[in-house]
Amino acid sequence: MQRYFIKGTVSLNETFVMDDEHVHHIRNVMRAKAGDKFNVVDGEGNAYLVLLTDLEPVSYEVIEKIESEVELPVDITLYSPFLKGDKMDLVIQKSTELGVHHFILYKAERSVVKLDAKKEKSRLLRYEKIAREASEQSRRTKIPGISFVGALKTIDFTQYDLVLFAYEDNNLTGSSIKDILARTSVKTIAVVFGPEGGFTETEADIFKTYENIALGRRILRAETAPLYALSVIGSYYE
Amino acid sequence: MQRYFIKGTVSLNETFVMDDEHVHHIRNVMRAKAGDKFNVVDGEGNAYLVLLTDLEPVSYEVIEKIESEVELPVDITLYSPFLKGDKMDLVIQKSTELGVHHFILYKAERSVVKLDAKKEKSRLLRYEKIAREASEQSRRTKIPGISFVGALKTIDFTQYDLVLFAYEDNNLTGSSIKDILARTSVKTIAVVFGPEGGFTETEADIFKTYENIALGRRILRAETAPLYALSVIGSYYE
Repeated sequence: MQRYFIKGTVSLNETFVMDDEHVHHIRNVMRAKAGDKFNVVDGEGNAYLVLLTDLEPVSYEVIEKIESEVELPVDITLYSPFLKGDKMDLVIQKSTELGVHHFILYKAERSVVKLDAKKEKSRLLRYEKIAREASEQSRRTKIPGISFVGALKTIDFTQYDLVLFAYEDNNLTGSSIKDILARTSVKTIAVVFGPEGGFTETEADIFKTYENIALGRRILRAETAPLYALSVIGSYYE
Repeated sequence: MQRYFIKGTVSLNETFVMDDEHVHHIRNVMRAKAGDKFNVVDGEGNAYLVLLTDLEPVSYEVIEKIESEVELPVDITLYSPFLKGDKMDLVIQKSTELGVHHFILYKAERSVVKLDAKKEKSRLLRYEKIAREASEQSRRTKIPGISFVGALKTIDFTQYDLVLFAYEDNNLTGSSIKDILARTSVKTIAVVFGPEGGFTETEADIFKTYENIALGRRILRAETAPLYALSVIGSYYE
């Protein structure tokens, strides 16, 4: 069933006018008629079944609350450098489906791509759209946040209960993700991935005291590694 | 280190002429010089460290055998319908990185794309190239095989020790992959995924007696589901 993220909150059995941004989709893409049902998710992450009551303006009645646990019970922040070409799109879309809560795109020392402020702004809008659409499609109740930051050394990783560092040099000696999760109980996890060219030693030094993870015995591409890790984390909790 | 898959077998301390298909890459892409080292993997999956001895013709001496266990200890066959656009490329590339051994592309009742024999042939060549490059990049010792087949009902699934069926209607009620793997010991696994529009009831009936798997609580796209399942299977064994 089609799902729309709205800005405010709604109440059961009352009628609301749909946010402008979804009107085109309802009228022209879904070609919806009064009586059609869809889902709305409000700004607090509550999901509802609603009934289209009018097209001028597009309005809906809230029928029932959907009690669902589609969100992972841990809050996952994915740290990724900006990846080339459509790889960043892929990571944003797939990681959203796999349940990530925040994307933080940092400047890796070996990052191939450098973005100026204007380009960053336009990319941010693009990624927010990809994350929103992937949230709708995968029936999530939260849209991951996305932000650009500077170098890894400027970030305070002590804010997370658990930091998983995917250092390709330790891929075979690192711990398995599920073993790490099994021996600890956490609410927030940061998972840190490197650029196509790998981390520098300076960057790796930041994570000396954190968990180094293994991602299986094969060498995964920069855009595949997060999908593997998120799948394994998800499968541990769900 | 660069890795080339060759057709025949080689012996330690002897010198061999490189297969024609890799000559261009060695000369013009890697711009290799005599004395450079790289890996070759022979037709039986043995990996060797070799030394370039000559460029005319391109020849190498076999220095040592690389004892590696990059292959999963179970043989995984991925059944996927032919997916639209670049999604099929993505599934072939990523699933190869994640360790799959065979791709079987079947004709789903709700498949969007229909290929004639000529188109199938050209796609097969394309997918074989993607699988070979992904095997080289991820340092595997096996290149997954790829074949096109007919409808699901024409396939004998009793040939596998374990059949995992990813039916979207059972996504929440299906068993977790790791629980299934934990209660059984298998050598061969078939994992069966549906098209963008889902399986028909007739297709689902074929798998009534097999394991229905859950892929987490979110709805994964047709091309994301295999990557999730393969990551979880891989993390169980490695």
